[in-house]
Amino acid sequence: MEKNRPIGIFDSGVGGLTVAKAIAELLPAESFIYFGDTRHAPYGDKSSHTIREYSQRISRFLVAQNCKAIVIACNSASAAAYQQLCADFPNIPIINVIDPAVKYIAQSEASKVGIIATRATVRSKVYAQRISAANQNLTVVQKATPLLAPLIEEGFAGTDVSKGALAHYLNHSSLKKLSDLILGCTHYPLLEEEIAAFLGPKVRVLNSAKLAAQALQGVLAWQDLLSTSVDAGKRRFYVSEKTPAFTKIAKMFFGQEIRLEEKFLKS
Amino acid sequence: MEKNRPIGIFDSGVGGLTVAKAIAELLPAESFIYFGDTRHAPYGDKSSHTIREYSQRISRFLVAQNCKAIVIACNSASAAAYQQLCADFPNIPIINVIDPAVKYIAQSEASKVGIIATRATVRSKVYAQRISAANQNLTVVQKATPLLAPLIEEGFAGTDVSKGALAHYLNHSSLKKLSDLILGCTHYPLLEEEIAAFLGPKVRVLNSAKLAAQALQGVLAWQDLLSTSVDAGKRRFYVSEKTPAFTKIAKMFFGQEIRLEEKFLKS
Repeated sequence: MEKNRPIGIFDSGVGGLTVAKAIAELLPAESFIYFGDTRHAPYGDKSSHTIREYSQRISRFLVAQNCKAIVIACNSASAAAYQQLCADFPNIPIINVIDPAVKYIAQSEASKVGIIATRATVRSKVYAQRISAANQNLTVVQKATPLLAPLIEEGFAGTDVSKGALAHYLNHSSLKKLSDLILGCTHYPLLEEEIAAFLGPKVRVLNSAKLAAQALQGVLAWQDLLSTSVDAGKRRFYVSEKTPAFTKIAKMFFGQEIRLEEKFLKS
Repeated sequence: MEKNRPIGIFDSGVGGLTVAKAIAELLPAESFIYFGDTRHAPYGDKSSHTIREYSQRISRFLVAQNCKAIVIACNSASAAAYQQLCADFPNIPIINVIDPAVKYIAQSEASKVGIIATRATVRSKVYAQRISAANQNLTVVQKATPLLAPLIEEGFAGTDVSKGALAHYLNHSSLKKLSDLILGCTHYPLLEEEIAAFLGPKVRVLNSAKLAAQALQGVLAWQDLLSTSVDAGKRRFYVSEKTPAFTKIAKMFFGQEIRLEEKFLKS
């Protein structure tokens, strides 16, 4: 049945599983196919042209698997490939992981918005430019926090290591008196509670994975594509290169044991 | 004058500056040319074939600059390209960053040797295999410590962050009762004192950057190539891609302000 087709979700690696997790929690009846391009991770260091090519290749695979929507669960691919994929697949809703957070901020009571992200995302200025374009009255500050992603991958979330790194980064003078902080990397939801506790109740912490899941729900409802199944959705997890390290990290990011299947996509 | 020609030193990035620093401290009269292939860093994820090509290209540049010796200040290139460079440049002494530590261990009173390194170096097993080949009676254990390099680059050496990460890694059961621990990554000398303090006086901590400098001194003395200059050596620092982040990290690794020059090498 048309509505019960899976959702396609992709990322350069396994970080996008935080988006898959948010989707599984918000839309438990939806089936999905996740593709993590671990062979080419991270995308952050690659050219926009290369990221577009990889994203097109993965999206063709997901569409060939009969996906009814595509979620770009990767900041670099969201910045570099979203327009291209919309042009390539005009009949399928495509959600990226940046615009839902931008839209939320632009319509909220925000005054000063901070973005923490990898060095590549900060360099791209994608959040800052889109937020300023949507609402010129907002102050927007970016801060690269490059240790957070490897720290999370190494299992140091919730330890003295994450506490020390967060204190160092979040005490930066540029991040004083924030109204909102966007977690601009798919890894960071694993530090959401620690970050919120550190910043206190006056700062709203925006989890872009959850906001992307909500945006997906909205567009599926609007296009009458929400699953009608009464059972839990079926989920498959592909990676372009499978290693024990990815399996371990995948479990941490999705919050439960999952089986990764290796899948090589031809160019 | 023949003896006063520079030494060529190269690495995939700026981590090899710890080796350059050790050379500058041990052999202050020597001039050197450092080349950090930041455009292609890190080498750890690349194939041996690719690492050899990059290493050959850089070595041709260094030899064209009239270098009297080449130091491979990079674990990945030492493992993948040393034999090739020895064949390519039979008339120039070539030092890698692995064998001096292996030789030291094989001739010492070691009983159980630990190696901490990046995931790529651990996967290559290069230290473990060479140490076992040199002395079959030694117990050799490897432990990947992937957070240490980014942690050092981000300036967290000597903080609660490094303390927490080191405690986690070094308390691993496989590293109990070591006689020696090899710092198998060019970044790790910046944590040498912390690691030595953590492990206590019973464990010898081997800094492979310092051992490589000593090996260089030995071969230059043996070939009668030590500088006869009474002045401090001249030093130049090239990188294939220059960014503000590299400049900052370079200062930290070399221990003093240095001027990086961008140099693109054609293939």
